[in-house]
Amino acid sequence: MKVIFLGTSSGMPTLKRNVSSIALVFTNKNKLWLWDCGEGTQQQIQKTSLKVSKLEKIFISHLHGDHLFGLPGLLASRGLRGGKNQQKVQIFGPEGLDKYLKETLNITKTYIPYEIEIKIIPPNLSAGVIWEDEEYIARYTEVNHNIKAYAYSVEEKKDRSHFLVDKARRLNIPPGPIYRTLKEGETVELPNGRIFQGKDFVSEIRKGRKVVFCGDTAYCENLLHLAKGADLLIHETTFSQQEEDLAKRNFHSTTTIAARVAKEAQVKQLILTHISPRYNSNTNKSAITESDLLVEAQSVFPETILAEDFMEYEI
Amino acid sequence: MKVIFLGTSSGMPTLKRNVSSIALVFTNKNKLWLWDCGEGTQQQIQKTSLKVSKLEKIFISHLHGDHLFGLPGLLASRGLRGGKNQQKVQIFGPEGLDKYLKETLNITKTYIPYEIEIKIIPPNLSAGVIWEDEEYIARYTEVNHNIKAYAYSVEEKKDRSHFLVDKARRLNIPPGPIYRTLKEGETVELPNGRIFQGKDFVSEIRKGRKVVFCGDTAYCENLLHLAKGADLLIHETTFSQQEEDLAKRNFHSTTTIAARVAKEAQVKQLILTHISPRYNSNTNKSAITESDLLVEAQSVFPETILAEDFMEYEI
Repeated sequence: MKVIFLGTSSGMPTLKRNVSSIALVFTNKNKLWLWDCGEGTQQQIQKTSLKVSKLEKIFISHLHGDHLFGLPGLLASRGLRGGKNQQKVQIFGPEGLDKYLKETLNITKTYIPYEIEIKIIPPNLSAGVIWEDEEYIARYTEVNHNIKAYAYSVEEKKDRSHFLVDKARRLNIPPGPIYRTLKEGETVELPNGRIFQGKDFVSEIRKGRKVVFCGDTAYCENLLHLAKGADLLIHETTFSQQEEDLAKRNFHSTTTIAARVAKEAQVKQLILTHISPRYNSNTNKSAITESDLLVEAQSVFPETILAEDFMEYEI
Repeated sequence: MKVIFLGTSSGMPTLKRNVSSIALVFTNKNKLWLWDCGEGTQQQIQKTSLKVSKLEKIFISHLHGDHLFGLPGLLASRGLRGGKNQQKVQIFGPEGLDKYLKETLNITKTYIPYEIEIKIIPPNLSAGVIWEDEEYIARYTEVNHNIKAYAYSVEEKKDRSHFLVDKARRLNIPPGPIYRTLKEGETVELPNGRIFQGKDFVSEIRKGRKVVFCGDTAYCENLLHLAKGADLLIHETTFSQQEEDLAKRNFHSTTTIAARVAKEAQVKQLILTHISPRYNSNTNKSAITESDLLVEAQSVFPETILAEDFMEYEI
């Protein structure tokens, strides 16, 4: 699976960064999940190869507009584009999300031709499983913001091996049904007499992957548990460590807080997102630059990347 | 005054056209009005030289999402950017607009630090004056769509002359307070002894300008009255004349309907907007192209332009 950052700004869009949204793409499964859906997310998706027809689930971290205002438009355009014969979309989020969607679609007479299922996290629960099937499990935990807000994890349930497609190609085995036979561990014989064993095309077993997205939060103990050992933690970083007070007052994180969480949770990779427009060199509001943010975080947790819009990361 | 097209697509955005919004800019007055505010309008404004701090009025034609979903985000970002010491924003529109904004801002805990005044058009009135001051008058008329929808006109009240700034520059009169004295009809003497009379720098009297924007509508008699003699009519053109039935079923206009309204109302210029994505050559939904739309309209009303995003038109 991979993530694609659709919006990496905090609060409002800039010319370089749109407001919050991240796509989670299941590479071999032709399905698309979203974390948050700020205004303009559907326009951002149009600039990628992603298809909203593949959209299956949307996880909303909290109800602030920069994480939410793109949701009605995205759902409506999906209806106009693909009609009613599309898979259902499940939407997960905090109390009030159902009212927001219902009122908005009702007042604006927006007809959604396909099925939408909204699942609200019970406000009295601070952590739990929000969805699972045989392969994946999605969990939530309440984080530390000035309104009810959640982080989400998505995890493969089983440790798995995968088919060594590059090796098969290198050996000039023609792609097609033969690959499936090899994947199933069978023996195949090519027309020219060459014989191959399935067991020779199986990778070592790899642990189930886990990715965590925190939405908006100040430093949060709950998040340490959710993120424990994750392959990827996507953490908000609204402010530089030099503006710690501002972060505290607004229930946001600094570079150092995000890096500390990554370190304490022993994740493999940290990606910083939700960057305040004040560090955009065009606005000149701050002498601190986005590069400074990365340096600050890396001094605590070296395996850190600063997200950009349309950046892709393979997990 | 001039208009700048911020979004010219119908229903949903494409890579070339965002959803509906048009800016009305009062060139010498440093103020900005908007007609409609589809999702992504604030992002479109960021790509122009317009400043949301100058925003003074927003006229909403109807409550469909592609004309409205950008409103909460635009208002919120204006607050984050400029704080409370900004001029108030007046918002005009149909019944339900106040509920939409109130519910949305309330559920998402969006704080707007400056004053917002919402004025709802009484649903029992089909035409009237929505706002006026000494210089301008804005009128509405109900149009013919599948929900309550209005067209708006903005008109200069007085016929006026203007100061011939180019002539003054050509004569090497230094810009500054002298220009104001000349504008007031006084005589000025430059330090080098040259003498100029204010009356020599006054243009011929020009009729008060009038611009009309119709939002979404099928052919509409009311609109003929509102648009009578306008300098500019901006009319929706969702469909080609070849898809007249589709237009009728959806309470939209074809190229020919828009051109016929322009002709019957004897306007000086027609601009077509709200173009269906089906005519975008990248989607291949239709053999009809956007150029065909223009040809269809011009065959009825030659003074027709097809709008593009970011197109500017001086009235």
